[in-house]
Amino acid sequence: MTGTMIELEHDLALLDRAARCAVRGHGHVEPNPMVGCVATDMDGVVVAVTHHQRYGGPHAEVLAIEMAGARLQGGTLHVTLEPCTHEGQTGPCTSAILDAGVSRVVIGQRDPNPDASGGVELLRAAGIEVDVLDHEASRLLLSPHVIRLQQQRPWVQAKWAQTVDGRIATRSGQSRWISSSRSRGMVHRQRGRVDAILTGIGTVMNDDPRLTARQGRPRRTPRRVLVDPRLDIPMDSALLATMDEAPLTIACLEDAPPERQDALRKLGVDVLALPAHESRIDLRSMLQLLHANHGISTVLVEAGPGLLSSLLEAGCVDEACVFIAPTLLGDEDATPPLKGRTPETVDGGLGMALQQVHRRGEDVLLRYGMLPGNS
Amino acid sequence: MTGTMIELEHDLALLDRAARCAVRGHGHVEPNPMVGCVATDMDGVVVAVTHHQRYGGPHAEVLAIEMAGARLQGGTLHVTLEPCTHEGQTGPCTSAILDAGVSRVVIGQRDPNPDASGGVELLRAAGIEVDVLDHEASRLLLSPHVIRLQQQRPWVQAKWAQTVDGRIATRSGQSRWISSSRSRGMVHRQRGRVDAILTGIGTVMNDDPRLTARQGRPRRTPRRVLVDPRLDIPMDSALLATMDEAPLTIACLEDAPPERQDALRKLGVDVLALPAHESRIDLRSMLQLLHANHGISTVLVEAGPGLLSSLLEAGCVDEACVFIAPTLLGDEDATPPLKGRTPETVDGGLGMALQQVHRRGEDVLLRYGMLPGNS
Repeated sequence: MTGTMIELEHDLALLDRAARCAVRGHGHVEPNPMVGCVATDMDGVVVAVTHHQRYGGPHAEVLAIEMAGARLQGGTLHVTLEPCTHEGQTGPCTSAILDAGVSRVVIGQRDPNPDASGGVELLRAAGIEVDVLDHEASRLLLSPHVIRLQQQRPWVQAKWAQTVDGRIATRSGQSRWISSSRSRGMVHRQRGRVDAILTGIGTVMNDDPRLTARQGRPRRTPRRVLVDPRLDIPMDSALLATMDEAPLTIACLEDAPPERQDALRKLGVDVLALPAHESRIDLRSMLQLLHANHGISTVLVEAGPGLLSSLLEAGCVDEACVFIAPTLLGDEDATPPLKGRTPETVDGGLGMALQQVHRRGEDVLLRYGMLPGNS
Repeated sequence: MTGTMIELEHDLALLDRAARCAVRGHGHVEPNPMVGCVATDMDGVVVAVTHHQRYGGPHAEVLAIEMAGARLQGGTLHVTLEPCTHEGQTGPCTSAILDAGVSRVVIGQRDPNPDASGGVELLRAAGIEVDVLDHEASRLLLSPHVIRLQQQRPWVQAKWAQTVDGRIATRSGQSRWISSSRSRGMVHRQRGRVDAILTGIGTVMNDDPRLTARQGRPRRTPRRVLVDPRLDIPMDSALLATMDEAPLTIACLEDAPPERQDALRKLGVDVLALPAHESRIDLRSMLQLLHANHGISTVLVEAGPGLLSSLLEAGCVDEACVFIAPTLLGDEDATPPLKGRTPETVDGGLGMALQQVHRRGEDVLLRYGMLPGNS
């Protein structure tokens, strides 16, 4: 391996470390991107590992510079995202970097936000060596932010638990419980890190869930969002009975019964009446409205095959988290995770990129990113 | 951690190492069990790691003793299976152990074969310290042997490749290729390690496979076994066109057209005409006959939902290897891996024990053992 190769491996390893640290900000920093930073002194000794910790708080680079102090003189910063140049809530990071006497900055990804970019050029003009790498983990960290910027909608993560043979419930709709209590605990913690949990009327009719974050210390109280075109939700459902625990939005068609709309609004429900698009709710518009009206930046989908398939069809799913339980139902009429597509060849499937494989006791968690051009 | 706990961990770690080595015998040693052995000297230094290498060849302990020589004086053997006491093809292992001056033997599993057991007692009577642990990996190594002894049928491993949402083919039966070329290469290598590959007439009609081991250096030439109750196999099928590459057994019902039976026999096919059991082939009897007539000790099932579900129903699947490709078909009418069961609750599923999770590029390989009491 040449010296340059070893150097590149070293830079990527430090960016990996910065990226692992960045994830700790999930649920705290959104709608900002998660960012991590590793500071090393002139001898290459790590003197700070930190991350952007809360929305409105200091950026990762500024925290690393504070933590490292004078030891950063002539040192290097590895940061997953290009340092900002704008006077935001915390002052530009580039100024702090120049003041710190850093001699090199390694960047995992350029900033996709035109208001914040330009950091690379500014630092280079000031005589600092800047390397921009196309670092995979930094790109994944930034994806939710890119989706929000480019599509004006939240980052959408679909989650489901299935048997090995791809069934989320029996033929009679029974699904409690396919995954282990450990996996379900993980889902509860994930609920406490997103802005909204999205489900469909079918799931409410079948399972009557509360969709609240009931394990761990929630970082956010997610808004429950129900897609219910004709407002069929039973007035004694658990979602309505827990209005004091978390806000509830119900998306319906404009011509859903007005007296139902009124009754639900009186209970404190945010009723989102949307124009019909081929007699269905336009899910992309709905997500954009949730982003605009409520600042929803991340959505966790816990839905049955109908809503999940419609979201995929609309190109509005960014990530799939699939829990696989050690069971075979062996019933072709049991509920599958998806439906409604009719590909004739294997190539007609929706392509995904495998991101993580986790063993969780007897369950396996597979995390995939959806490939572009699927919808 | 107490001293005893540390000692136990140490013993289990050495048995793990022996078990990992044992697997190298797969395809070489059957119908013998795979066995591995680690020899350490009186100071605990590892002086030999070896395994039973071929059927009829010396046992793992004997090889370890040969390899370690005088360094084994006062040392320890960690062996995944109880050393045998019988004059088989290679002389009893217990005698070799006594001659070697070993002071301690740690055993992963007792020998389930009454003709070979008694090694523990014999060694103890001779003053050697013997510890028998219920070691998980040793148990898994021994499972095929236990099935053969107790059920007089081969060990049956089912393999299939599916999309994440549990589809092995599109609605039109197209399945080339769901898994990656890397995963398919692995299957070809696996084919070269078993005694038989089992499929059904549906797969022949759909895919017209050859079912030969075409990658790596095959350790065995597996017999192809086709379940074809009425002898519907087309005379121009790839299985019949490759009779010179590997033997072929076709299992049919006794009353399958006699002229078809004759025609196939003339081509060199081993036609296995079986009595009807509720108008179907009794798969357990078929497997027992393959074991008795052809010495088939291991079977790889590469079949569609019909045969695979029937085998599971008959309690004749021991292991499931599932390749999960990064795709969603999203079609409720695409082919599932299994069918025909009708559980009303999740508890009615077939339970499995997760044994291994492997990432293979973009595919994930999940290996499960079937839990007893499933059929």
